[in-house]
Amino acid sequence: MNVAVLLFEDFETLDVFGPVEVFGRLTDLYAIKFYSLNGGQIKNRHGVSVLTEKLENINTNLEIFFIPGGWGTRKEVENKLLIDKIAEISTISKFVLTVCTGSALLAKTGLLDKRRATSNKRAFSWVITNGTNVTWDKKVRWAVDDKYYTSSGVSAGIDMALGFLSDRHGIEFARQVAFEIEYNWTENKDNDTFKAV
Amino acid sequence: MNVAVLLFEDFETLDVFGPVEVFGRLTDLYAIKFYSLNGGQIKNRHGVSVLTEKLENINTNLEIFFIPGGWGTRKEVENKLLIDKIAEISTISKFVLTVCTGSALLAKTGLLDKRRATSNKRAFSWVITNGTNVTWDKKVRWAVDDKYYTSSGVSAGIDMALGFLSDRHGIEFARQVAFEIEYNWTENKDNDTFKAV
Repeated sequence: MNVAVLLFEDFETLDVFGPVEVFGRLTDLYAIKFYSLNGGQIKNRHGVSVLTEKLENINTNLEIFFIPGGWGTRKEVENKLLIDKIAEISTISKFVLTVCTGSALLAKTGLLDKRRATSNKRAFSWVITNGTNVTWDKKVRWAVDDKYYTSSGVSAGIDMALGFLSDRHGIEFARQVAFEIEYNWTENKDNDTFKAV
Repeated sequence: MNVAVLLFEDFETLDVFGPVEVFGRLTDLYAIKFYSLNGGQIKNRHGVSVLTEKLENINTNLEIFFIPGGWGTRKEVENKLLIDKIAEISTISKFVLTVCTGSALLAKTGLLDKRRATSNKRAFSWVITNGTNVTWDKKVRWAVDDKYYTSSGVSAGIDMALGFLSDRHGIEFARQVAFEIEYNWTENKDNDTFKAV
């Protein structure tokens, strides 16, 4: 499966690279590429600078569109060019996965309307303003509604990525990946120890 | 504190970006830069390509030298130029942190001799060949010996980074960071659920 990871200025580091570790190590099953609206180096406040291709280079055979969160989402929800592109790519993609406030960007397209979704436990009051018709679930570690997977904050993206593997390849497969990366996986998406504030 | 992150071809994604998330979000306390032997874009098999500076640009005021693991370490332990540079920088750095098989690179310098250290639970048989005078501890989530922090595989780097914060700023501070990134932190370094194989 092809995985297209969306980056933008001030993306959250672990939102991206937790799931990239999970999918990236399965080189026989998943191929990851990084994209941004205009391509080139995309930086964040953690000093990370990642090389990306232009979003328009994504072909119509995309299987996973991945949208992280981070401070940059506060600005990007107002970026109509980007939101339109997210809507277009999410529509053609077989699955769409968001981490943290990445669900605010996806909600802004309207594609989450009447769907169950979640987001960062500490950013809900802002996130919900970007999708007032979304059924926001503030309790879960991650939510699944049809082709849309949305996770809670930062580290929860790793749990969701493992949950995605479990849904596609079975729970023993996902457990093996968690074992290989020595990650204490929260297997049950409804079992989150963190509470929305 | 300045944090210099060493990258090399085929570094492990989460080894790097778990701790980078932990330190990176504390912009008032930690400043992260990425380095490699020759500078430029450094790639891994997960499709990640990160921009780095040359290691020789590191000044003598370094506070944290960070060494990740990954498949690339198998090749880099034989790279005398790199190992010599790691020895030089580790000596001047106030602290040295390794994740996963990054401890093999550090062990190769001889600086871990007679010190307690750990590594990836599934790579010990290879790692120990790079430091036969190291006191390898196969049980812990991470080990601390004077200025040297070494962690077990991949995700354990996040626990170690939080442990480092705890040692410097107190456990409540570290717990707050874990809370913010919604990470279920293994607070006790001796309490690892993963076993060496």
